[in-house]
Amino acid sequence: MRNVLLTLAYDGTNFCGWQRQPNVRTVQGELEQALSQVCGEEIELNGTSRTDAGVHALGQCASFTGNFGIPTERIPLAANNLLEDIRVLDAKEMPEGFHARFDAKGKTYLYRIATAPLPPLFLRNNFYWLDSLPDTKPMGEAASLLVGTHNFAAFQAAGGTPRETTVRTLRDVKISPSHFSDMFGEYAGIDIEVNGDGFLYNMVRIIAGTLAEVGLGLRTAADVQTALASHERKDAGRTAPPQGLYLKQVHF
Amino acid sequence: MRNVLLTLAYDGTNFCGWQRQPNVRTVQGELEQALSQVCGEEIELNGTSRTDAGVHALGQCASFTGNFGIPTERIPLAANNLLEDIRVLDAKEMPEGFHARFDAKGKTYLYRIATAPLPPLFLRNNFYWLDSLPDTKPMGEAASLLVGTHNFAAFQAAGGTPRETTVRTLRDVKISPSHFSDMFGEYAGIDIEVNGDGFLYNMVRIIAGTLAEVGLGLRTAADVQTALASHERKDAGRTAPPQGLYLKQVHF
Repeated sequence: MRNVLLTLAYDGTNFCGWQRQPNVRTVQGELEQALSQVCGEEIELNGTSRTDAGVHALGQCASFTGNFGIPTERIPLAANNLLEDIRVLDAKEMPEGFHARFDAKGKTYLYRIATAPLPPLFLRNNFYWLDSLPDTKPMGEAASLLVGTHNFAAFQAAGGTPRETTVRTLRDVKISPSHFSDMFGEYAGIDIEVNGDGFLYNMVRIIAGTLAEVGLGLRTAADVQTALASHERKDAGRTAPPQGLYLKQVHF
Repeated sequence: MRNVLLTLAYDGTNFCGWQRQPNVRTVQGELEQALSQVCGEEIELNGTSRTDAGVHALGQCASFTGNFGIPTERIPLAANNLLEDIRVLDAKEMPEGFHARFDAKGKTYLYRIATAPLPPLFLRNNFYWLDSLPDTKPMGEAASLLVGTHNFAAFQAAGGTPRETTVRTLRDVKISPSHFSDMFGEYAGIDIEVNGDGFLYNMVRIIAGTLAEVGLGLRTAADVQTALASHERKDAGRTAPPQGLYLKQVHF
């Protein structure tokens, strides 16, 4: 039995998320169909992360096993020829028993905020568009309070898979200014990068929404401390929209 | 009766072109629905150009008449609130009898070519992606042959509205290098800008496909001269794909 680990990028805009579901377009569904054709046998994927509808990936991982003939190094090109908004960036052979979800030691997410009076036409699905730019200084102060091992119950949305514990460790929460342009003009934004051992349902989007509110002066770093201590969802900020979120890297 | 002229930008990716059709998503259909809501009466649009599926606009124009109450200057914001991949850039009052199609004196189209081994994930629908960069020098020579008044029968696809004559005047065909970047890297490309009094079906895409082939050394400027003289579609190059094409400006 061969065991292959894929590294994937995708534009989440036109997908109902990662997880295969009947009658809707999902990343897992599209990718399994392409890989089944490439491998000449039914492929079932184990994805590291079940990204939501609209969420993008720059380095999602997924593993699968089988007795197919195609050499591992040829899988990316062969699969990419069949795919439209998913890219297989890499494929490598792993030891028997390896599993992209159970063996992941952590993940890094990128959350992108930017400003414009109206979301620019061709970038509308790639950022959380705000009218005015949050201030990175208080955001950085609030972000530093989140680093470390905490009970993140206040930063969890209802509706996810039930978890044994809401304690998670964030290794780093980085806030950095961004600048970019398109055919219509230039834009300023803020990138939030969160590296942690695991994440609760919508945790990065709630962190991003909370930090944006701190940067806009709508809440303080002390409020973030309060939310961490109270474990109450109502004490954290809003859930930022999915289109600003990118699964950047999986750590094994 | 008020007569309003709109200037529009849109991302053509998820539209079956401009023209309203039953049961499919079109720019005219979506926009008429939004404007009818904004104006409180049934709006019917006269668009300057019936752009095809996948073709974008930076400056499409459309006019409509009615006795609605909303001030003209408020229409863009009100409509944009209801739209997702269309932007109303401007609205202005025109004299009675003005018609966005019949009164147009010409149009400028932009066709964007770029190079990458694999179309970049978030820019895949915005350029004609080639493996290698065409040479702008022979492209410029071939382009200059197209400027002026010619019978462009060889640069017309079958299937368009029948026209009385295939003679058109191109005022300018500009070839210029482009450079841009995204999250994944930097890219080089070529922009082709075509300004003319009128265009046959798929004319800009056939011009772009032909010029790209000249730039890649697959055909010569002399071949372009041959196509202009023969009036035979087979003597021109391939039809470049819709996603590289932008209706940039309408001239009145």
